[in-house]
Amino acid sequence: MNTKNVKAYGTESADADLKQLSIDRREVLTKDVEIDILFCGVCHSDLHFARNDWGMTQFPVVPGHEIVGRVTQVGSGVSKYKEGDLVAVGCLVDSCRTCNNCKDDLEQYCTGGWVGTYGGYDKHLDTNTHGGYSETIVVDEAFVLRVPENLDHAGIAPVLCAGITTWSPLRHWKVGKGSKVAVVGLGGLGHMAIKLAHALGAHVTLFSRSNNKTEDAKKLGANEVIISTDEAQMEQAMGRFDVIIDTVPYAHDLNPYVNTLTTNGTLVVVGYLGPLDPTIVTVPMIMGRKAVAGSLIGGIAETQELLDFCGKHNITSDIEVINIQDINTAYKRMLNSDVKYRFVIDMKSLKQ
Amino acid sequence: MNTKNVKAYGTESADADLKQLSIDRREVLTKDVEIDILFCGVCHSDLHFARNDWGMTQFPVVPGHEIVGRVTQVGSGVSKYKEGDLVAVGCLVDSCRTCNNCKDDLEQYCTGGWVGTYGGYDKHLDTNTHGGYSETIVVDEAFVLRVPENLDHAGIAPVLCAGITTWSPLRHWKVGKGSKVAVVGLGGLGHMAIKLAHALGAHVTLFSRSNNKTEDAKKLGANEVIISTDEAQMEQAMGRFDVIIDTVPYAHDLNPYVNTLTTNGTLVVVGYLGPLDPTIVTVPMIMGRKAVAGSLIGGIAETQELLDFCGKHNITSDIEVINIQDINTAYKRMLNSDVKYRFVIDMKSLKQ
Repeated sequence: MNTKNVKAYGTESADADLKQLSIDRREVLTKDVEIDILFCGVCHSDLHFARNDWGMTQFPVVPGHEIVGRVTQVGSGVSKYKEGDLVAVGCLVDSCRTCNNCKDDLEQYCTGGWVGTYGGYDKHLDTNTHGGYSETIVVDEAFVLRVPENLDHAGIAPVLCAGITTWSPLRHWKVGKGSKVAVVGLGGLGHMAIKLAHALGAHVTLFSRSNNKTEDAKKLGANEVIISTDEAQMEQAMGRFDVIIDTVPYAHDLNPYVNTLTTNGTLVVVGYLGPLDPTIVTVPMIMGRKAVAGSLIGGIAETQELLDFCGKHNITSDIEVINIQDINTAYKRMLNSDVKYRFVIDMKSLKQ
Repeated sequence: MNTKNVKAYGTESADADLKQLSIDRREVLTKDVEIDILFCGVCHSDLHFARNDWGMTQFPVVPGHEIVGRVTQVGSGVSKYKEGDLVAVGCLVDSCRTCNNCKDDLEQYCTGGWVGTYGGYDKHLDTNTHGGYSETIVVDEAFVLRVPENLDHAGIAPVLCAGITTWSPLRHWKVGKGSKVAVVGLGGLGHMAIKLAHALGAHVTLFSRSNNKTEDAKKLGANEVIISTDEAQMEQAMGRFDVIIDTVPYAHDLNPYVNTLTTNGTLVVVGYLGPLDPTIVTVPMIMGRKAVAGSLIGGIAETQELLDFCGKHNITSDIEVINIQDINTAYKRMLNSDVKYRFVIDMKSLKQ
């Protein structure tokens, strides 16, 4: 297969900094869309993958799955996009397309195995897929999304992962006008959860360990902040929330939050993969038919729905734009939660 | 207030056997129904309460919340029942009746505090409520249920707790024709879960630690039995079940069962109050939008729905009838799971 050599940023080992690499993109096939990447958001997963924290990375890895760009070329069978369109690619670039979940627009739960935007298996090139820290990407139109032109091109990038990760559970658990939603953690995911729940008409509460996030949370759309280390405040919050979106990326005690769910309420873990430590006590779950659940990004149709919703409500992520050459510093700052609330790489910097 | 002295069985301390006691029942008030108790099922909770395992028992305690009897007298304001009616009383004899859950027929989640059939607070007599191990009981008609006459009077008793505890989650999580339901544990709750899920049209699987329950499970309506200690069988079961009803009454590892849930599936804990040990790992929950939830008995309307369903499908519990004088032996046998599948007391034995 013909390929095109492009510049990218990535790493060849878990303990090396990211640096400039050269990768191959496939020629545009019948159903393919070639995208000139304008901006790429920086997700915690990028760092975990680059450092092989999950033990499954094959090197070299080129991270990035919050991609916004312009179409530069389309295959002969492409019907949805044309040259010049503003488009996006999120966490998935393919799936089996035949399992029940794929048929139900739940590609993120594809039982045949979805293909991640980076670190997945690229059946065309028989190699790893490479993500958005690069000049261009070639993706089947079925996994390309349309971006409303009115939105800030950099600010919309994090919606492709941080946004859809919180949107999908808000929609699945039917958050709307009058819903009582709480968000645990105010980072990339948490700040999007607040904006989206607020825009859906919910009453939004942020759980925070300290008072110094109150002003920011309210600006984002939270109606109130509950200090989770204050027992009196937590006692007062008992039985209040229909849905809690827990974005905390490490093990923490869910029990105080489960207590704040109302009857039939659900706490959705979206930020942490691992054993729940300390463990959950079943008593409040049984006494109030409460649930603890997980949720993973969203399907393609649902991500398009979110982009359209953002277009209508003029919602983007709060970001700090960086050059690709600053990615290693950005990773260090991200680990310290030193960003409001997402780094987005201006990909012009790679082309210089 | 006038009271009537009746015979009962109970205990005055946590370490004493149950013995015959004398208790007072209130006179029949305007909305009250007096019931001559014919049969009373024996629930694990009866034993836990008598032995103060949950640290909240006030003595003397008279257990029993699976009550079937005949109406002997009604108050002047009673409209639903008349003398001679076959009726039942389950786990609740009152609730606040004003909170949102009470208004939504979810008295079991009453936030004002429901009144348990035993060990609750009897506002009329300013004492503890006393349960069904007695000659008669006086209950507000709003908490009295009608029993279809075609059903075996003894066999229907366990439906009031074991039955509704499994029926409520089956209904809440929308089990019906074509649903894939699994049941963990084959005791009083588990055998009702199998019968009810089967009658609702679901494909029913029992998880069992050994092969010796297979024949019984199939007779009860299970389509298959999966041996949970057999890794190959568990591997094959991955991603299969829409709903799992977990009836096991002690801490156990939920993770192998969560793996067998399908996308959007829910494991409902109904049998165990306490910390989940070992703890749950979030990975399969996130990767398949799976949930772990709890559920408590059912509301009054839902319990009536179940009794009517049992009448229509001629479903009763598989029971062993005992005399009240054998209750202490029955408790010992129940602790050893030595009953298929529920003891029911023939209350004639108390009247002799």
